[in-house]
Amino acid sequence: MKVQPQSRAPLAPGSTIGILGGGQLGRMLALAAARLGFRSHIYSDESESCAFSVAAERTRAAFGDRQALEKFARACDAVTFEFENVPDDSVRELVQHVFVAPGPECLRIAQDRLTEKNFVTALGIPTTPFRNVADAAGAKAAFAELGGRAILKTRRLGYDGKGQRIVTSAGEAALAFAELGGVPSILEGFVDFVFEASVVAARSGDGSFAAYDMARNEHEQHILRRSTVPAGLPQSSAREAVSMARRIAENMDYVGVLGVEMFVTRDGKLLVNEIAPRVHNSGHWTLDACEVSQFEQHVRAVAGWPLGRPERHSDAVMENLIGAEIETWRELAGSAGLHIYGKRAVRPGRKMGHITRISRLTPAAE
Amino acid sequence: MKVQPQSRAPLAPGSTIGILGGGQLGRMLALAAARLGFRSHIYSDESESCAFSVAAERTRAAFGDRQALEKFARACDAVTFEFENVPDDSVRELVQHVFVAPGPECLRIAQDRLTEKNFVTALGIPTTPFRNVADAAGAKAAFAELGGRAILKTRRLGYDGKGQRIVTSAGEAALAFAELGGVPSILEGFVDFVFEASVVAARSGDGSFAAYDMARNEHEQHILRRSTVPAGLPQSSAREAVSMARRIAENMDYVGVLGVEMFVTRDGKLLVNEIAPRVHNSGHWTLDACEVSQFEQHVRAVAGWPLGRPERHSDAVMENLIGAEIETWRELAGSAGLHIYGKRAVRPGRKMGHITRISRLTPAAE
Repeated sequence: MKVQPQSRAPLAPGSTIGILGGGQLGRMLALAAARLGFRSHIYSDESESCAFSVAAERTRAAFGDRQALEKFARACDAVTFEFENVPDDSVRELVQHVFVAPGPECLRIAQDRLTEKNFVTALGIPTTPFRNVADAAGAKAAFAELGGRAILKTRRLGYDGKGQRIVTSAGEAALAFAELGGVPSILEGFVDFVFEASVVAARSGDGSFAAYDMARNEHEQHILRRSTVPAGLPQSSAREAVSMARRIAENMDYVGVLGVEMFVTRDGKLLVNEIAPRVHNSGHWTLDACEVSQFEQHVRAVAGWPLGRPERHSDAVMENLIGAEIETWRELAGSAGLHIYGKRAVRPGRKMGHITRISRLTPAAE
Repeated sequence: MKVQPQSRAPLAPGSTIGILGGGQLGRMLALAAARLGFRSHIYSDESESCAFSVAAERTRAAFGDRQALEKFARACDAVTFEFENVPDDSVRELVQHVFVAPGPECLRIAQDRLTEKNFVTALGIPTTPFRNVADAAGAKAAFAELGGRAILKTRRLGYDGKGQRIVTSAGEAALAFAELGGVPSILEGFVDFVFEASVVAARSGDGSFAAYDMARNEHEQHILRRSTVPAGLPQSSAREAVSMARRIAENMDYVGVLGVEMFVTRDGKLLVNEIAPRVHNSGHWTLDACEVSQFEQHVRAVAGWPLGRPERHSDAVMENLIGAEIETWRELAGSAGLHIYGKRAVRPGRKMGHITRISRLTPAAE
């Protein structure tokens, strides 16, 4: 495997940035790349990918198609991802031919809930209590240790609440394990948090780091409904959260934007819930309320450009448009801060767009 | 010719907006269209058009190719322009098949400096003094009437100082007429202005109107160097300028964004210099300092969507990156508000990108 260069010359405008994945994150990355004069090359396994329509180049192929991956890599000056579940072998194929950020090790950690939680815990950063679950007996044993109420989650491939079950007894834990396909899982103790918040931050190849102001996140049916900035955390907590995100990024030798989701408990403690090694839904507000959006920031890091200032010029509330909500576009059309992803098929739970409402800047709470 | 509908149903997301012209304005229009979930179809006569790389569909054909225009029109749900010098016949071809905004009459007026100045004057709006010049003798006679110092300009196809000559005698006026090819021209009296300013505004098909705050514009070698907002005009002058722009738009039954360039004279008078029936370079700052940019605003008008609020959230200074200046991209890469157009060939005077620096909002001067 070719070693990833630690310091590289910045990519010249006109260079091509490859993006694996053709959804809304890939689309907004491609739009941000265009703003800086880069060409984008979207690689997706779906012919109706909404990112295709804003890309300079398009490859439609399976994510495991080594020949297509090689051709794609050779056509790009750097490659990144819009999702973390890129197969290991595919990443290994890509890094033979082209600079890839974030690197394979970051994906390996973030793809697996157990690896991720062990990684975070080893840094001395608190997470929700968790246990490895390899079989039905393990599920029962884990429940016995954590007790009360817990969530069984598959180690891999879960998102928006998929691959999860709430369980309230050892028997339920074993049943949930079977229902989720008997795949390697973890059991997490239920945390009585006050709210969820996230740090969206960027790290560049030279080690510089820039975090956006934290967002307070509200979910409905496991899908992000709303992100609000400022989040209303005490500044000391916000500083602690950013410091955690920075330690995570540094110890992964991370290059690009990452999202770190956290629970804020009743006693003001922060528990890391999940690391997203990519631009993050809770950072969409930066498109409308910051000089440099999370998408531009990610492109900057991938291209070896200096990171932009993450300061916001406005307060912001971002709301997702989910599923059939997009059918109200006539009523929404009058709103500023409207983003529609151009997906043809409307499906329940599918993210179809978002709206960010900005307002006059209020200073962060003390 | 099909009558342009006065009120239409708004275009649904996923509709295709056709854009004639493949330069940076077309590119930024396509990016704004994508934000709202529209597909863009760029029509350009150059194979290396920088707008192609962000468009869903691309047509490369001459602007006078009627067959290609018809096919393009049939593939689009609405069509607009990034430049005013679209041939009359081509516009007539397009409106047979598709809604076109701004309409043919707006282009007809703005394509010809004499028609434009007569149109503005007929509305009771002051312009620089001007005379029609049809031949060398006419050039001499016009100079005799205007006197002192004057500028001969071809009636059609001039931009960025092309097709212009400063003259200081009747003989020079006749010579300049010959040098510019003996084509229909006008002679304009030289105005001793304090600065140049512009109104960038939008009008929608239902008659609603929204103007951005005025920009103060500085040119170098006839090319826009810098736009500053706020412009520093007294509010009464700014109100008068917006009222002029509104009268112009209403009397053209204009749909879309237009730029109205003005001279501000030593005694505070406003003289209309030129109408640009399109998004305008002096409105690029709106990308970084407004909730709804001029590009999104234009797309909204063309798509029959409500106009967005034109308020700015920040002060702004926009500087163009012209010709070889883009070669300093390594030094510029650290700037927020950087926009690079992705043009391959660097040529003197060519607009390659721009930077907008925003700062905390100051209220407009009284």
